[in-house]
Amino acid sequence: MRPNWLHRRVRQTPQRIGLRFGEEQWTFEQMEQNVLRYVTLLQTYGVREGTRIALYGQATPSFVFLIHASFYVGAEAVLLNCRLTAEELAFQIDDADVSLVVTEDVTPFESVSARVVSFTDRLPAERSVSYRTEWEAHEPATIMYTSGTTGRPKGVIQTYGNHEANALASLLNLGLAPSDSWLVTVPLFHISGLSILVRTVLYGTTLHLTPRFDEEESARLITLGRVTMMSVVTVTLERLVRVMERNRWVAHERFRLVLAGGGPIPPSLLDRAERVGIVALQTYGMTETSSQTATLAIEESKRKVGSAGKPLFWNDVMIDGTDEPYTYGEICIRGPHVTPGYVGHASTIDAQRDGWFHTGDIGYFDEEGFLYVVDRRNDLIISGGENIYPAEIEHVLMRHEAVREAGVCGVPSEEWGEVPVAYVVLEEDVSLDILKRQCERHLAPYKRPKQIVVVDELPRNASNKLLRRELKTWGN
Amino acid sequence: MRPNWLHRRVRQTPQRIGLRFGEEQWTFEQMEQNVLRYVTLLQTYGVREGTRIALYGQATPSFVFLIHASFYVGAEAVLLNCRLTAEELAFQIDDADVSLVVTEDVTPFESVSARVVSFTDRLPAERSVSYRTEWEAHEPATIMYTSGTTGRPKGVIQTYGNHEANALASLLNLGLAPSDSWLVTVPLFHISGLSILVRTVLYGTTLHLTPRFDEEESARLITLGRVTMMSVVTVTLERLVRVMERNRWVAHERFRLVLAGGGPIPPSLLDRAERVGIVALQTYGMTETSSQTATLAIEESKRKVGSAGKPLFWNDVMIDGTDEPYTYGEICIRGPHVTPGYVGHASTIDAQRDGWFHTGDIGYFDEEGFLYVVDRRNDLIISGGENIYPAEIEHVLMRHEAVREAGVCGVPSEEWGEVPVAYVVLEEDVSLDILKRQCERHLAPYKRPKQIVVVDELPRNASNKLLRRELKTWGN
Repeated sequence: MRPNWLHRRVRQTPQRIGLRFGEEQWTFEQMEQNVLRYVTLLQTYGVREGTRIALYGQATPSFVFLIHASFYVGAEAVLLNCRLTAEELAFQIDDADVSLVVTEDVTPFESVSARVVSFTDRLPAERSVSYRTEWEAHEPATIMYTSGTTGRPKGVIQTYGNHEANALASLLNLGLAPSDSWLVTVPLFHISGLSILVRTVLYGTTLHLTPRFDEEESARLITLGRVTMMSVVTVTLERLVRVMERNRWVAHERFRLVLAGGGPIPPSLLDRAERVGIVALQTYGMTETSSQTATLAIEESKRKVGSAGKPLFWNDVMIDGTDEPYTYGEICIRGPHVTPGYVGHASTIDAQRDGWFHTGDIGYFDEEGFLYVVDRRNDLIISGGENIYPAEIEHVLMRHEAVREAGVCGVPSEEWGEVPVAYVVLEEDVSLDILKRQCERHLAPYKRPKQIVVVDELPRNASNKLLRRELKTWGN
Repeated sequence: MRPNWLHRRVRQTPQRIGLRFGEEQWTFEQMEQNVLRYVTLLQTYGVREGTRIALYGQATPSFVFLIHASFYVGAEAVLLNCRLTAEELAFQIDDADVSLVVTEDVTPFESVSARVVSFTDRLPAERSVSYRTEWEAHEPATIMYTSGTTGRPKGVIQTYGNHEANALASLLNLGLAPSDSWLVTVPLFHISGLSILVRTVLYGTTLHLTPRFDEEESARLITLGRVTMMSVVTVTLERLVRVMERNRWVAHERFRLVLAGGGPIPPSLLDRAERVGIVALQTYGMTETSSQTATLAIEESKRKVGSAGKPLFWNDVMIDGTDEPYTYGEICIRGPHVTPGYVGHASTIDAQRDGWFHTGDIGYFDEEGFLYVVDRRNDLIISGGENIYPAEIEHVLMRHEAVREAGVCGVPSEEWGEVPVAYVVLEEDVSLDILKRQCERHLAPYKRPKQIVVVDELPRNASNKLLRRELKTWGN
């Protein structure tokens, strides 16, 4: 048995600050006092060990308490994405066979069959509750839906052991100062946000929650030293750095690093970040691995630009079908952080065939064992029999100073099967001819985008990760 | 399966410094290159997975490499205490049924039946070796003999899982900076030293090894910031602080803390340590728990003087027979760091009856859950039916400024069964009458020592822990 994280943390260091939100803050002890009110709420509606429920909420302290309450009760919590349509939500609730939806807003759930209750209206009167102080590593803690190659989202099980293993492996790479405070601007219903919630209670450090990503506020907190770490993707890092440059701000010396997921950060942005005092560590993670599988070590952040680092301490990565460096193949992952499998329609899928989780992503190792993630396999463009990785084309475009963001996808072609098309968001005016020449200089002919389209914005998910599969629909 | 610590660490951060000794240093990669030569040595003598061997050596880099080599081969290594007599060594080798002794000095092993080889003479020619890159948590890694209540030392099994759990629990309490360097002045054949060897390879930090405790050298390293942590007991801390006071030195700002085992540190010494910039965290550990079970958190080091802190994250402690605060009883321990049992003559002892390891030590919790270790049960003095804890009398004596060290034990008495006798090492001249009055002021009549004897030195083990059972023999 392993201890309930928050419950144990309260016994260790009750007076440390566990949560900040705006100007409010809660010690771990105060967090638990709040959590117990939500435990009462859940138990009032019959939730008990093993009950599958769904939670729907924005990043608020109440939602943090509710997630912990679900752990205290021993429920299996489906964390619903707040950006989904009512139909998409209904699919997940049905697929996961959820008996209760606990939500800050009942509107999107009008037509679901499960019982729906609000956690923001009024809480039931507190009463003495019993709850779990321990759990087993193999028990499901959370379920998150993630899109697969075939379209229908799959409900990924994340066990207590998965979350804990991930938090500990991260710790051995990033270190731990008791004064750490992790700025969360990513959703709690994504693993990038939830994993920070888990880490901070295990570590006894502060979760600094914000309702959404706000570059001005993030830059201010970093500059004043009120936070020491933050999770970003390329586009949020760029916006953050831009604010700091404009204000001539520099990160406080207490600020340790940003963890950068969702694909490689361009070297020029790493340089700009460094000039405002921000060390960015590339990471590679996903829902099925309860976040990080590989992350750069601090001493390698500049030497190994473009790499997602090495697999963390207890994790293994192999490139399917090869052990030669620089050879592309599917990235396969093994370790205590890997999901045991899926729920609902996907429950028959073996997530660990031959002991390995097959990611569908393409990557390679260099000769020193650093992992490079080339592309999500779903996004692979096959053109005249040649593999084209969208990320490669995007990087070439973004190396031009006039281009702020680029997204590439394949569109059907009678002649080639598929051809690449590029969408760009501009930093400053530039002719398309110049961008075409940029591609001609750096890319083999078959890789050059057949069309470059200027747009105001690229499609991104709630974590600001580029959605290439959505780009594909733009051409229609 | 869990990864071989050093082997994995080399794959993570090969160029970090893993070991320092005097002016020499080794990266993790260089450490492994050395370790593989000792792997060849062990395999030359037929050592393989599960072979039980004994290792005998002082704190040297070679001995560090040899210990890791034993892990690489998968042997079960009995770590022999270098202070033992030939007869005591022969007992352990026989009791553990050891097939090979690997030693820096063959002299003490002239009459043992096991094969004896030197690891310092000459190493066999290197050749390509196969070794373990993974192991199971439940496999025995090391065996250490510890004295029990009944006299005959018992061989305690420490598994890979025990060592790893301990290192991780310590981490959540003490934090981790990649630049950490742990000064080891305690023997590697004791758990206090070996646990640092394990931690530093798991953490990717530096083991700063010294041949023995030298207060001048330790004070110099702390003042120059060449180390960031150190393990001490009261007497070594006192000697260290004294050097720093005399030289008007202050610990470098990089120096984080000392971990203080072997019983409570007097408040006056904590104050003196603080004035030279040293934060001392009391800990409670033992061979059967692969070192720390409870340790004070940094923010409590001054508020909870005399306490050994709270049980670390995954550990549980109960006071047998009570859950009331301030009630004395036997300290019982549960957690992934607790030994599965013993070897040899003690192998039939159930180390975890009812799921708990019964320590034989006496302690209590305060109302906030802080553990106080009152005494080792073996040292308990029972006088006229009253329990007397030697530590209590020692603390009263040490509170007098003329007393540097004090040790108390029971001696037979026809009238009372046993009575306490005190041995003191003086800081400055003082009359025994004054010390007697000190006891009268602070101790109930039955607790007052019947005799106070001035000595030059107290009996201590290789970790400088007071040996009260040896004091007992002084009266004869």
